[in-house]
Amino acid sequence: MPKPILTLTTDFGLSDHYVGAMKGVILGICPQAQIVDISHQVSPFEISEGAYLVAQAYPCFPKKTVHVVVVDPGVGSARRPILLEAAGQYFVGPDNGVLSMVYAREKPKVRLISNDKLFRHPVSRTFHGRDIFAPVAAHLAAGVPPPRIGKLIGDFLRPAFQKPQRTGKRTWSGLILKIDRFGNIITNFHISDFPNLEKCNFAMRIGPREIEILVRNYAESSPGEIFLIVGSSGYLEVSVNQGSAAKAMGCEAGAPADLTIW
Amino acid sequence: MPKPILTLTTDFGLSDHYVGAMKGVILGICPQAQIVDISHQVSPFEISEGAYLVAQAYPCFPKKTVHVVVVDPGVGSARRPILLEAAGQYFVGPDNGVLSMVYAREKPKVRLISNDKLFRHPVSRTFHGRDIFAPVAAHLAAGVPPPRIGKLIGDFLRPAFQKPQRTGKRTWSGLILKIDRFGNIITNFHISDFPNLEKCNFAMRIGPREIEILVRNYAESSPGEIFLIVGSSGYLEVSVNQGSAAKAMGCEAGAPADLTIW
Amino acid sequence: MPKPILTLTTDFGLSDHYVGAMKGVILGICPQAQIVDISHQVSPFEISEGAYLVAQAYPCFPKKTVHVVVVDPGVGSARRPILLEAAGQYFVGPDNGVLSMVYAREKPKVRLISNDKLFRHPVSRTFHGRDIFAPVAAHLAAGVPPPRIGKLIGDFLRPAFQKPQRTGKRTWSGLILKIDRFGNIITNFHISDFPNLEKCNFAMRIGPREIEILVRNYAESSPGEIFLIVGSSGYLEVSVNQGSAAKAMGCEAGAPADLTIW
Repeated sequence: MPKPILTLTTDFGLSDHYVGAMKGVILGICPQAQIVDISHQVSPFEISEGAYLVAQAYPCFPKKTVHVVVVDPGVGSARRPILLEAAGQYFVGPDNGVLSMVYAREKPKVRLISNDKLFRHPVSRTFHGRDIFAPVAAHLAAGVPPPRIGKLIGDFLRPAFQKPQRTGKRTWSGLILKIDRFGNIITNFHISDFPNLEKCNFAMRIGPREIEILVRNYAESSPGEIFLIVGSSGYLEVSVNQGSAAKAMGCEAGAPADLTIW
Repeated sequence: MPKPILTLTTDFGLSDHYVGAMKGVILGICPQAQIVDISHQVSPFEISEGAYLVAQAYPCFPKKTVHVVVVDPGVGSARRPILLEAAGQYFVGPDNGVLSMVYAREKPKVRLISNDKLFRHPVSRTFHGRDIFAPVAAHLAAGVPPPRIGKLIGDFLRPAFQKPQRTGKRTWSGLILKIDRFGNIITNFHISDFPNLEKCNFAMRIGPREIEILVRNYAESSPGEIFLIVGSSGYLEVSVNQGSAAKAMGCEAGAPADLTIW
Repeated sequence: MPKPILTLTTDFGLSDHYVGAMKGVILGICPQAQIVDISHQVSPFEISEGAYLVAQAYPCFPKKTVHVVVVDPGVGSARRPILLEAAGQYFVGPDNGVLSMVYAREKPKVRLISNDKLFRHPVSRTFHGRDIFAPVAAHLAAGVPPPRIGKLIGDFLRPAFQKPQRTGKRTWSGLILKIDRFGNIITNFHISDFPNLEKCNFAMRIGPREIEILVRNYAESSPGEIFLIVGSSGYLEVSVNQGSAAKAMGCEAGAPADLTIW
């Protein structure tokens, strides 16, 4: 029997004991678990960035994988913990939109996590990753059926950042989901929503700059040139050949990105 | 049979091959080991920070877990390698205080690691993590009984940083254990030693500033306000609502933190 | 039966989903795999640094380990994917020199990876780590024999950075392979090529400075002094006792390091 896989996506960073503590809790409940880090370097409290990362990673994982996503500025407040069943996999996290790029794509079942017998006690005020999300995920991985976690709900949060908003006949208003390690600027414009972009005239405006070039691979560009490319995720990315587009453009995750096509 | 769990806490960082090399050595000796990183981002040579991290993490792990802690400015000198048995778990590291926040809390057995048949040879002058601590921990995880590692000793190092020192009737002198990723300043004042703090007047002085507010959760504070909160570890932390206290206060791990109560 | 071990060395960093995606692909093909990170912090596109890291790590791993090395500035171009069999282990990566410090030491068999039935489809233009290297490595770990991956080749890339070049009777021209976390400057001068260095007069020139001191361990040096030491890898390293040599010298990976002996 294959070992259950759990992934972790948080904004906890790697210098503290927080991630290690979550893993200890998981292995205490589900010793055979295979734990995979997606990222712990989500910018602190950046819900859209966490949402993007888990949405990019889960299609690479086998069925039954349990994804734990903890970007949770509202920890200790009334925001609810939820469990998502989608694409044959499970997703556990706060109901603040951090799972929304999964349920925008799939038809999910969403449950309110309410069975506190599965929690680690005492539940601290500030670390639900360790005390709620990790143990619930580990119980799921160990075979606890979802209905024992909590009841189905329909009123989970649906934030606006999954897709650019249409603002006119030829204009869309989106945002920067993530700056990757190479300084590529990943926008929330997905090529599947703009399939003919290559044949159009267009301008992507970020800050004071407009980019009007779309290349198919890096080799098509000259060193130093700023261009758009369809990234491995299908999103439009602003890149510079062997340089950092984020440095050249001076921008951050969460900033606006606007597209005009004509 | 559950797989043996080994954790690693070091100041090696993640850009070098050092951590990977330790893991290769461990898996060569104990192929079924489940290896968990606590942190490799301990500030270089900061023994109290490493001591804090492992002390925070181990209560989340099951019995028999082997914790390897390598913050070792004295590598190559006469400092001794030790093995600690405490709380049903094992701890391996240099005798420089890095395990002291474990043995301050538990009644440990401490052994001098002396059986060099368990080492990786040749033992290098600068990398005992790979050549002594990793292989000894892996042999332990694989079932070698502690008495075969070395004899019990009583003269292990007891450093002063585990607890604030009382300096007067109403005053204690402590220090900053860690700045966490969110800029929270974690002091070595544990709420269990100051259970009535909420009902007292007090001032925590760090650098030129004094903090006199203790809140129960972040929601009780206004944005930008600096306050004390009992962290998930039970230590008093200086925090700013959705901001970095370390940036606001301009301080680092190891700096003094003094408490007055009246 | 021991679980197959796969290691990963990349310049993908840890903030993106790239490494997690590779691990998901690996576990989908080879669920019993034990995955070990060597480093994902290779400086972007620094092939010699990736080559150094995997060459340092592999001797610590057991036979049959599969090492995946993705530092790949030419992704999407004509550079070829290769599989190396050496020292009883496997190495998978682009044919750009990133595996060259392995085949400089061992007698390797090198194969062109050509069996695209083993790839993940569709193969993206920019992420061969996920679509070619990870799945091929996972199939190897799961037992696919190397001849089914592709044919033996002899014309793989042999770059110059593995060893310093002799430039005169008493002079050698080398480079900096890596700055480690502690600021130690690791050169490509290996002590086995200069076994009598301790008994000679010598000067190592890096930038405007010359270092003429070789110590056997840190304790032999005074605080603040800049010296050479044989690192745990056997390479000459420039170090400062409890300080950062890289900061003191102002230099980076890839910069020249020249040795004169007299």
